[in-house]
Amino acid sequence: MAEFSGPFSAESVEDRGAFFVLLSAVQRDVDRALATWLKPRVAAAAQIGDDVLAAAEAVEHLALRGGKRMRAALIAAAYASCQKGASSHVDDDNTRWAGALLAMVAIELLQVYLLIHDDWMDDDEVRRGGPAVHVVLRNRLGTKRLGDVAAILAGDLACGYAQAALLETTLPAEHVLRAARAFAQIQQDVVKGQIAEMHSARRSCTPSTSPCTSVDATALPSVETIHSLKTASYTVTGPLVVGALLAGANDARVAELERFGRPLGIAFQLRDDLLGVFGNPALTGKPIWNDLRQGKRTALVDELRDDAAAQIELARVLGNANAQHGEIEALVHTMEASGARARVEARLQELLGEARRALGAMSFSWGTGDMARAWLSGATFALGERST
Amino acid sequence: MAEFSGPFSAESVEDRGAFFVLLSAVQRDVDRALATWLKPRVAAAAQIGDDVLAAAEAVEHLALRGGKRMRAALIAAAYASCQKGASSHVDDDNTRWAGALLAMVAIELLQVYLLIHDDWMDDDEVRRGGPAVHVVLRNRLGTKRLGDVAAILAGDLACGYAQAALLETTLPAEHVLRAARAFAQIQQDVVKGQIAEMHSARRSCTPSTSPCTSVDATALPSVETIHSLKTASYTVTGPLVVGALLAGANDARVAELERFGRPLGIAFQLRDDLLGVFGNPALTGKPIWNDLRQGKRTALVDELRDDAAAQIELARVLGNANAQHGEIEALVHTMEASGARARVEARLQELLGEARRALGAMSFSWGTGDMARAWLSGATFALGERST
Repeated sequence: MAEFSGPFSAESVEDRGAFFVLLSAVQRDVDRALATWLKPRVAAAAQIGDDVLAAAEAVEHLALRGGKRMRAALIAAAYASCQKGASSHVDDDNTRWAGALLAMVAIELLQVYLLIHDDWMDDDEVRRGGPAVHVVLRNRLGTKRLGDVAAILAGDLACGYAQAALLETTLPAEHVLRAARAFAQIQQDVVKGQIAEMHSARRSCTPSTSPCTSVDATALPSVETIHSLKTASYTVTGPLVVGALLAGANDARVAELERFGRPLGIAFQLRDDLLGVFGNPALTGKPIWNDLRQGKRTALVDELRDDAAAQIELARVLGNANAQHGEIEALVHTMEASGARARVEARLQELLGEARRALGAMSFSWGTGDMARAWLSGATFALGERST
Repeated sequence: MAEFSGPFSAESVEDRGAFFVLLSAVQRDVDRALATWLKPRVAAAAQIGDDVLAAAEAVEHLALRGGKRMRAALIAAAYASCQKGASSHVDDDNTRWAGALLAMVAIELLQVYLLIHDDWMDDDEVRRGGPAVHVVLRNRLGTKRLGDVAAILAGDLACGYAQAALLETTLPAEHVLRAARAFAQIQQDVVKGQIAEMHSARRSCTPSTSPCTSVDATALPSVETIHSLKTASYTVTGPLVVGALLAGANDARVAELERFGRPLGIAFQLRDDLLGVFGNPALTGKPIWNDLRQGKRTALVDELRDDAAAQIELARVLGNANAQHGEIEALVHTMEASGARARVEARLQELLGEARRALGAMSFSWGTGDMARAWLSGATFALGERST
């Protein structure tokens, strides 16, 4: 991992530890709350018929089968950081985010909805160590077409569940309403980001006929615009804002969290781009070079846009599921040798520095104080410097 | 059209007229509000890139290209019927539902979302007199696969827009929040109804290999369960409840509207089933016998479940896009001669009677009085006795 070289020191060991303790507690609480929330919905689906049950169960199984609960943890941290008059002597951490628990359930259900549609779109057959929902439903229904239709509907059902869970929150109506508006914005942002990304991939490659042609960068949204919509909003800024609004944060506080979350969210996606090519699959749990084979327009690919020789290598590999190992290795070497990797890492560190400065400028005197600051600081490390 | 033969007299000419005046005013207001609401969203999409713009424009074009605005009119009527202390001397009708206008926009956007996904699922190429969104996007993107993916995403975008529009409503937060919960319930109900319907059709037919096999009715949700979820909630009960909650209605009032809306909603779908076989395509605007060719499990089909001879005719026609004209005519004749049509019509009238009784039991002394009652009465006719 690159040494941090920004103007602010990296996160302390204590802050990193605090965030991982938070994440672990949130995993426990969210897993339990998801199971509890979904159980009566699955039972209600069973009352209608076994096909509706199958859809509800597909949602339930995917929701409960792992997931880092990083987004839920950010809701918890932001909520705790904005609670006015919160007692500083709360012994049991989970009471700090109890009010936001349904929103944490909701963001995980929103992710289930997006994963179901996304896996169908990308033709990814495995998700969280099990078969993707469209694979489950194709097998159940006997044809690809029916399975695909049922998977889109199962995703739509998860989307409805997500809205419902959030809106059941029993905090002041004004707080819930503002959080629900932010939640609807997340949904719009991520969908727009997916459209922009899908079309970028389409223009850079035509996998069914031939590998890539060079990207006409002038006609495309920038990679950071896509990252901002598809990842930063959905993974970082959105959860932070939802958590803050549930706690009754004012506009100034929300703006502070956005200044922190947006660069951190883009940095998170840049780290993802780097790990997809240079990461250790044993740690990431994802097949190496998948982004390249799928033709994703990552920051690394984008960094090679003016390199004519690299474009020839890209053309052989990007979006070509059958690319030779040697061809990919050559491209990866070029990404290193041309400085593309270093430039992406530098930009990532620049964004992390921006996030750190924004966090440093925030006051925590009116919230749960040091603990909430430590959580957000630790999150900076967990999202930006992760190797998994 | 069948003569009304229930225990209550049909709606007066005045009530019918009042509802059509309402519908016409709502069409005008909603068309304008939809255009105004979508315009900045389309402009924001254009800022990202022309592919996101194409998705936003597909939503906009479908939203503005006609639509009866029946659901929006029911929101308006319910809202007006529950406003406490509403002045009875409002000259300009549209001020009666101004507070609910964004919810009316939202329900139309929810419909756009469902239509986009539904048309893709049913492979329907025409919608509201123009090409379905997946057809537009297949043409734009050059392949079926990319067009399908983009259409699902365009539908997802419309879903996010729908949530956002509703949540922007500037009524008391508690009212908006309760309405948003009902709105999320509509979304879940209709998706569950679609799953149940899709799977019913699958079991009654396997179009790609052969026409239908007989339906194993014992393993399926009843037709009225499907109608209740897929149509009654989404088309009638849901809009009524959303309108009422926005006006601050209490639980008792909401329950009254549900008692009125649920039978009316099922009757609406039974009328749809009848018009799909016995209607005049010049009036309905839909190809005759489409339901049969698509293998839909309508109430008419269900009425033949114990008729062995009819099952043989059904097996030739249901879900068979290439069924002969003569074969369909023979089946339609059987639906008439066996009494299936009469039984469906009788059930429809029974449900309309139930809706009329529920409406008769409602008090309008505290709302906009006679006008709101007339609107809901006229809606009963418009939804249950329509020929278009």
